[in-house]
Amino acid sequence: MRILCLIVVACMVSGCGEERVMRRTMVMSEYSIGASSINGDGSVTFRLAAPEAQRVSVSGDFISAADGTAFGGGEMVRNGDGVWEYTTLPLASELYTYSFNVDGVRICDPTNGHISRNVSTLSSELIIGGGRGDYYRVNDVPHGTVRSCWYHSDSYGCDRRMMVYTPPGYESGGRYPVLYLLHGAGNDEGSWLELGRVEEIMDNMIARGECRPMIVVMPNGNAFKQAADISAAEGTALEWSDRKPLNPMLEVSFAEVVDYVDGTFRTVDGKRGRAIAGLSMGGGQTSIISYSLPDTFDYVGLFSAAVGAVTDEQNDAKIKAQRDNGLKLYWIACGTEDFLYDGNRQYMSYLDSIGFPYVYCESDGGHIWRNWRIYLSEFAPMLFRK
Amino acid sequence: MRILCLIVVACMVSGCGEERVMRRTMVMSEYSIGASSINGDGSVTFRLAAPEAQRVSVSGDFISAADGTAFGGGEMVRNGDGVWEYTTLPLASELYTYSFNVDGVRICDPTNGHISRNVSTLSSELIIGGGRGDYYRVNDVPHGTVRSCWYHSDSYGCDRRMMVYTPPGYESGGRYPVLYLLHGAGNDEGSWLELGRVEEIMDNMIARGECRPMIVVMPNGNAFKQAADISAAEGTALEWSDRKPLNPMLEVSFAEVVDYVDGTFRTVDGKRGRAIAGLSMGGGQTSIISYSLPDTFDYVGLFSAAVGAVTDEQNDAKIKAQRDNGLKLYWIACGTEDFLYDGNRQYMSYLDSIGFPYVYCESDGGHIWRNWRIYLSEFAPMLFRK
Repeated sequence: MRILCLIVVACMVSGCGEERVMRRTMVMSEYSIGASSINGDGSVTFRLAAPEAQRVSVSGDFISAADGTAFGGGEMVRNGDGVWEYTTLPLASELYTYSFNVDGVRICDPTNGHISRNVSTLSSELIIGGGRGDYYRVNDVPHGTVRSCWYHSDSYGCDRRMMVYTPPGYESGGRYPVLYLLHGAGNDEGSWLELGRVEEIMDNMIARGECRPMIVVMPNGNAFKQAADISAAEGTALEWSDRKPLNPMLEVSFAEVVDYVDGTFRTVDGKRGRAIAGLSMGGGQTSIISYSLPDTFDYVGLFSAAVGAVTDEQNDAKIKAQRDNGLKLYWIACGTEDFLYDGNRQYMSYLDSIGFPYVYCESDGGHIWRNWRIYLSEFAPMLFRK
Repeated sequence: MRILCLIVVACMVSGCGEERVMRRTMVMSEYSIGASSINGDGSVTFRLAAPEAQRVSVSGDFISAADGTAFGGGEMVRNGDGVWEYTTLPLASELYTYSFNVDGVRICDPTNGHISRNVSTLSSELIIGGGRGDYYRVNDVPHGTVRSCWYHSDSYGCDRRMMVYTPPGYESGGRYPVLYLLHGAGNDEGSWLELGRVEEIMDNMIARGECRPMIVVMPNGNAFKQAADISAAEGTALEWSDRKPLNPMLEVSFAEVVDYVDGTFRTVDGKRGRAIAGLSMGGGQTSIISYSLPDTFDYVGLFSAAVGAVTDEQNDAKIKAQRDNGLKLYWIACGTEDFLYDGNRQYMSYLDSIGFPYVYCESDGGHIWRNWRIYLSEFAPMLFRK
């Protein structure tokens, strides 16, 4: 009954990925990043005009194309025009985030319009194409629709915001399966789009026939928030926590999310048409939601999930019921450097002990968005195939 | 036949506005702006930790609450902890953008998640409540849905991106009128949402019954772009201009936009259910589109529009046909300091000369988003009333 599959990082990061490299359908100039530039060999020259600054450096989550090692940037050198420069090694195809430090102050690249927010930290972004990074770009393929909408939650007693991706062609009719995608602690309903590149990944994979067209629903998973801080009524977070300290968690109220989505969008009804996945806190929620609503999801994905040994008797009984009820895929992915790695091993030991079938996918790296984008692009192709 | 109405700035900025101040339906903490803080008297204390910096200043588009004069910030002072501070005068209720300058480098506030992009410049944002600024906040009112979607343009030969606001309740059924809202040169389909606060203005005005529920459509008005640079396939802009130097302008292809919207959303059919307005370049486009499609729009708004004397005989004939065909509102607004002020005066002289009825609304200030937010909140209540 058990399916235990170790997929090594070489397959995840290079093997499978290489087969899926987006062909360029038109001659494209490189992704513009302002005064800085992506060079022909995949190296990046960062530039910042700061004639009066004393010291400037660049930091990023770079990976060498030559040997796959990570490096973090370095000191920039001032040229005669007062422009500070730094050129990286040739970089592996990926989406990178970076920032400058000017006399001790961390800043985004002021000439690059591509920025993202991780919790409360803003960073600049760039994409090196020619490989995995092509999944994260806007390419010349049919595009889905992304909407920001609000549903009413009876258990929270308020409206809450969610982001929804519908695939190209949705407007023409038909019913579509749904992937519910949950974020981590500190993130919000916009994080999977902004940092996880869901719109680009889905557009590109659907265009190449690598995954089925599907709806992707990204709710807010924080118990005390209606929406991301920048999209919420001011003071909401504070007020809710003051007034309703026992507010229901997302796990308890998740049936409301499913009901809203089934009532608002043309969905494939029943568990065969539903998947749920989440990262970190959202991975823990995915575990709980999927066994608390055992007839709801045929596909479950735990990405660097906040899980551990299962010792509670009630939870043990629910997970066994989920096992007996059957589902098509229970997929667990974690990086070897993740601080939740041991918790995931304990969780899988428990699943092994009760004969719960799952697939395990181990990558390198830690608790980072690069891994979660990779996990999504590995998970999505397995959904709604049968 | 002529209706010429001079609405002075005092009415626009204070008079009408005061009547529409959002009542706070819940006790709210102030809009959080990170390490900086909004004080009880409406002044703002900016703070930036930069122990190693030599010189730090703050710049913004501030307005004194006491006398309505504009001021731009100033030098910050380093305290003993290496934190630089500057406190403004008490500010009038508004949305303000600001930035810091650290040793000659312009930066966003690194601790404030509220940022916006104007063309390629990123700025931090803050809102002073208690007046007009409350229209630009997310308040605890029913929220509409905002979607990013792509339509196919036969005349451009590609898919193009637009943003669409649908009002609260749209999902429950019924038909809604449509306001088409066009941006200025250098802006894109996201600018009216990001800088123009369309979602917040519409949510708040609809909640107070100050305007009818309506759909707001924000297409990309640049002839050589499929979408905003950050949302487009890389190199698209360059490629289109290289390959199709005579690409149709938005004015020529606008019927496609209307067809897509009428085919995709539940709209009120016919000119009584359509308004069009635009700022700067988009105002010029609004003039042209509305006389080129004379049976399409009953409401037309020119916000700081790129217009001037009408000397072309064909255009003169089309505008006279638009006049004879009749429409419910032709509304022109411009600031006295706007570089397009003279052009607007010339355009109105022409309209006067042919007896074309319009309403003119003059404000202070120049070619700035503050004015365009105000114009939208003055224009929207007049739409779809009859």
